[in-house]
Amino acid sequence: MFFGVNPFGHRHILGISQLAPGDITTILDTADSLKEILDRPIKKVPPLRGRTVVHLFLEPSTRTRLSFEMAAKRLSADTVGISAATSSLVKGETLVDTARNIEAMRPDVLVLRHPASGAPHLMARHVDAAVINAGDGTNEHPTQALLDLMTVRERLGRLQGLRVAIVGDIAHSRVARSDILAFSKMGAEVVICGPATLLPPDPAALGARVTLRMEEALEGADVVIMLRIQRERMGQNLLPSLREYAARYGLDRRRAALAKPGALVLHPGPLNRGVEISPEVADGPCSVILDQVTNGVAVRMALLSLLVREG
Amino acid sequence: MFFGVNPFGHRHILGISQLAPGDITTILDTADSLKEILDRPIKKVPPLRGRTVVHLFLEPSTRTRLSFEMAAKRLSADTVGISAATSSLVKGETLVDTARNIEAMRPDVLVLRHPASGAPHLMARHVDAAVINAGDGTNEHPTQALLDLMTVRERLGRLQGLRVAIVGDIAHSRVARSDILAFSKMGAEVVICGPATLLPPDPAALGARVTLRMEEALEGADVVIMLRIQRERMGQNLLPSLREYAARYGLDRRRAALAKPGALVLHPGPLNRGVEISPEVADGPCSVILDQVTNGVAVRMALLSLLVREG
Amino acid sequence: MFFGVNPFGHRHILGISQLAPGDITTILDTADSLKEILDRPIKKVPPLRGRTVVHLFLEPSTRTRLSFEMAAKRLSADTVGISAATSSLVKGETLVDTARNIEAMRPDVLVLRHPASGAPHLMARHVDAAVINAGDGTNEHPTQALLDLMTVRERLGRLQGLRVAIVGDIAHSRVARSDILAFSKMGAEVVICGPATLLPPDPAALGARVTLRMEEALEGADVVIMLRIQRERMGQNLLPSLREYAARYGLDRRRAALAKPGALVLHPGPLNRGVEISPEVADGPCSVILDQVTNGVAVRMALLSLLVREG
Repeated sequence: MFFGVNPFGHRHILGISQLAPGDITTILDTADSLKEILDRPIKKVPPLRGRTVVHLFLEPSTRTRLSFEMAAKRLSADTVGISAATSSLVKGETLVDTARNIEAMRPDVLVLRHPASGAPHLMARHVDAAVINAGDGTNEHPTQALLDLMTVRERLGRLQGLRVAIVGDIAHSRVARSDILAFSKMGAEVVICGPATLLPPDPAALGARVTLRMEEALEGADVVIMLRIQRERMGQNLLPSLREYAARYGLDRRRAALAKPGALVLHPGPLNRGVEISPEVADGPCSVILDQVTNGVAVRMALLSLLVREG
Repeated sequence: MFFGVNPFGHRHILGISQLAPGDITTILDTADSLKEILDRPIKKVPPLRGRTVVHLFLEPSTRTRLSFEMAAKRLSADTVGISAATSSLVKGETLVDTARNIEAMRPDVLVLRHPASGAPHLMARHVDAAVINAGDGTNEHPTQALLDLMTVRERLGRLQGLRVAIVGDIAHSRVARSDILAFSKMGAEVVICGPATLLPPDPAALGARVTLRMEEALEGADVVIMLRIQRERMGQNLLPSLREYAARYGLDRRRAALAKPGALVLHPGPLNRGVEISPEVADGPCSVILDQVTNGVAVRMALLSLLVREG
Repeated sequence: MFFGVNPFGHRHILGISQLAPGDITTILDTADSLKEILDRPIKKVPPLRGRTVVHLFLEPSTRTRLSFEMAAKRLSADTVGISAATSSLVKGETLVDTARNIEAMRPDVLVLRHPASGAPHLMARHVDAAVINAGDGTNEHPTQALLDLMTVRERLGRLQGLRVAIVGDIAHSRVARSDILAFSKMGAEVVICGPATLLPPDPAALGARVTLRMEEALEGADVVIMLRIQRERMGQNLLPSLREYAARYGLDRRRAALAKPGALVLHPGPLNRGVEISPEVADGPCSVILDQVTNGVAVRMALLSLLVREG
């Protein structure tokens, strides 16, 4: 297992955009070795003993918070959480003041989910603690992309040269943004697909091919990442009827067959069964959706252990 | 103290209905021996070190959650909580998907409170983790019944042959259901009592005698379990006036005198003083209400230590 | 570092009003010695291992709760939290019943924030656990005053003979009340200042001088404590316009220059920048606002270690 000195030079994990392919490989290798812990009866190891991880989640989240919290506890860290519901901390004070205040309590790691894009970057400039971006506005969700990479590499043995289709609400998805950056950096070819109203204004800048036709996106794909319809991020007018959406962009068995044999199906969850994905695909042999969840804990353990410096 | 190999063959605690009298005795014996820890200055022992208990409370609860959390921590477990307020986990996904997701993070125990009867049973079919029902709809609340049994056995030395009166809103009470099953299984005779609108449609099926007259229920009782009026579970029309309710079904000193000398008074809390129970009875020498609370921690410690298998 | 036997005879920390100057000195000395831990890579020590601290916060709070929780964890305590959002515990039951219930679960320390003045005192009469007041109504917030004392003593080397100005909404501020008592007890001279509508009805009883003119309050001050406008505690009619308030009672550089050279500026946070304090002062060389936050953790560690008795 990997706990020793490593070539990882980062103080924070703010986005895939700031990581080099070598960094990503270090993270994935570390996560692979830590994952073994999750199969033991006693799933706890000591590297973060005596360290404190603050989880500051200023947007509703259960899934990601739970994963981070379990990752921290399995490394023996102490955790303290602040959620949106009780965020009087930030009432009437700037984000920088919040950062300085938390810093003054001397945490080791600050995991931040925030509705504003760039919030973790601002935080990182004002704290000594390591900052991990757990999702910022419509910008990035780097730990999700890392767990997606881990899951694909684990199953297919490589990332280089793969063809990855990302389907759904690309415009409002920080998962999509981080995934496009991550898979591209690792040498995969990414094609994004969705209704015109849900595509980003300048997709080429992200380094991905674009298509409005799902069949075209799926053809020859090694990996299909289905996104959740993010109703809360869309204006009322943009929302297509769910039925129409499912008909044109839902992944059912017939469509899944257009991808390469053995192609993987990913979804960041929670699933809208019957909308963006059919139950037969979600529960089928190509689905690695639950591997993603398990790997999410391993990737977050890897980041925590890489960022916390020796005393 | 009891930590060794035991004859307890259960993977989950879903309801009293699934436990044999011998299982119940094992749980109570274990709880008795663990209770001794609660009188020490350092109330912590190591059997669940490195184990993770997820508390998934999808109905408001403070009392039961606090008791479970303290039980887990005293056994050195790590705990992670998800409450109704932050349950985006389950938004737009099925209970089975929620179960699979939590399972993919590899917890050891999942403690579930859920507004739907049968939810823990469904969960248990999809997770490797041990599931403990912390209250499901109007079905069961088995840990409450176990702590009631423990409290009575501790005080009266036996359960067999006792006469137990349960008074109040039987129809909407999962505590009543679990208590009726539990005391009956252990050889006690149960009589239930309340206004006709608050009695279950088929009380005989539960194995209890029924009366509308409180005096009849109390006469000769060894144990009186007073239930809380569950306003949130009743339609507007069914709610009797509190004053009228107190007059007919409230337990005051005069009525308590109808029970056997030394009879015990139990209440699951929180108390509506002056409604279902008068302060003089709640705070009187027969009341074992606070013993119930202490024993609740011991019973939950017992269940956690019995369900978590050796590594 | 201080962990041994000490002359501290208190079972609870309910208010500054109940502490003698010698007690306060013991607390500050203990906090000074514990603060050193916060500069270590591993900020955790064992004195509360196996002890349980219950945080019962029945008013919104993030800052104080976070500080208490980090203090407890750094002393190796287990913590369990109950917040206002999930306070079904107290629905329909009296505060005394809540106290007795929590006590029955055998915690070692109960940290209470409550909207009613006197709530911690009532709790303390019904529990064996040590009670720490984390803010009760408009009465006291003793840990805030202690961290203010610690911060001033640390910077100026003494408390005796200092001149302390407290400016803002004195009438609704439990911080002001505890600070007035605390600085007066330690031999400082306190002057309070604010608009007439925000001054207490009988300021002389608190032992402080009063002025409506900020210039008079600042002149010759060694310490300036700026309070946050507590909008939630004021009736609609009392609220002065923020602009007018800032003009008359805001601390800007020009006004700060009226105090003694090297005078300290404190603020309990969160800051309303541009209202009660200008950014140039909040971030200037006289500001010890972030020292207050760090010292808050140290003071709470001191109280926890002083109150928890040997087993």
